[in-house]
Amino acid sequence: MNKIEHIGIAVKNLKDANKLFEKLFGTPHYKIEDVKSEGVSTSFFKVGENKIELLEATKADSPIAKFIEKKGEGIHHIAFDVDDIEAEIERLTKEDFIVLNTVPKRGADNKLVAFLHPKSTNGVLIELCQEIKG
Amino acid sequence: MNKIEHIGIAVKNLKDANKLFEKLFGTPHYKIEDVKSEGVSTSFFKVGENKIELLEATKADSPIAKFIEKKGEGIHHIAFDVDDIEAEIERLTKEDFIVLNTVPKRGADNKLVAFLHPKSTNGVLIELCQEIKG
Repeated sequence: MNKIEHIGIAVKNLKDANKLFEKLFGTPHYKIEDVKSEGVSTSFFKVGENKIELLEATKADSPIAKFIEKKGEGIHHIAFDVDDIEAEIERLTKEDFIVLNTVPKRGADNKLVAFLHPKSTNGVLIELCQEIKG
Repeated sequence: MNKIEHIGIAVKNLKDANKLFEKLFGTPHYKIEDVKSEGVSTSFFKVGENKIELLEATKADSPIAKFIEKKGEGIHHIAFDVDDIEAEIERLTKEDFIVLNTVPKRGADNKLVAFLHPKSTNGVLIELCQEIKG
């Protein structure tokens, strides 16, 4: 794993959260993106070499809606940048981590993504992400 | 805020968690440190320019023990590196963030730290930290 690519934060209202995090960081978000397949609207902030991704559910059965219902707003996942997501999925499966989608899927921000089940990672939802090139 | 300094993860058993995160990252932790005033034992991993801090409670009334009791293991806080922690506390207080300790205290890893109440930051416990120099 090369670095922390971003930290995902579940929020109820993206507009309000954008204002709040702009005050916190002293700089505005640089991008808004909807990921229809996941039922989320996202915004991105840059902090050093990392990003903060805010996520608002756009439908009731979205994983983010369920997360907020259960745990409230807050940190949802950590995403790690990898060079070869398929090789990482294979390596981590052999190490007994539970990979939620063994076939990478398209995520926000031009990435292929896969998630590790928090049950296998001390309660932390971990995303692997690989930049889609070309 | 310069960058994400570290992400803090609450764990029940530091030894077991160290093994797990070593498998995840492919590299071992580089440091163990007890912070008696906070009732925690911590270990650190490097990932890119960031660190991952694992935290195990060493006494029953430690904030980490209470966190795990309420929410289970998982991501506990995000720490941001700042140049002047007192100036940041003043700036953020004016912006209506709730600073839990307006006088910075000594944390792990040779840092002065202050925390923002999650109530004022979309459910995210945020730590400001400034390296102690000299």
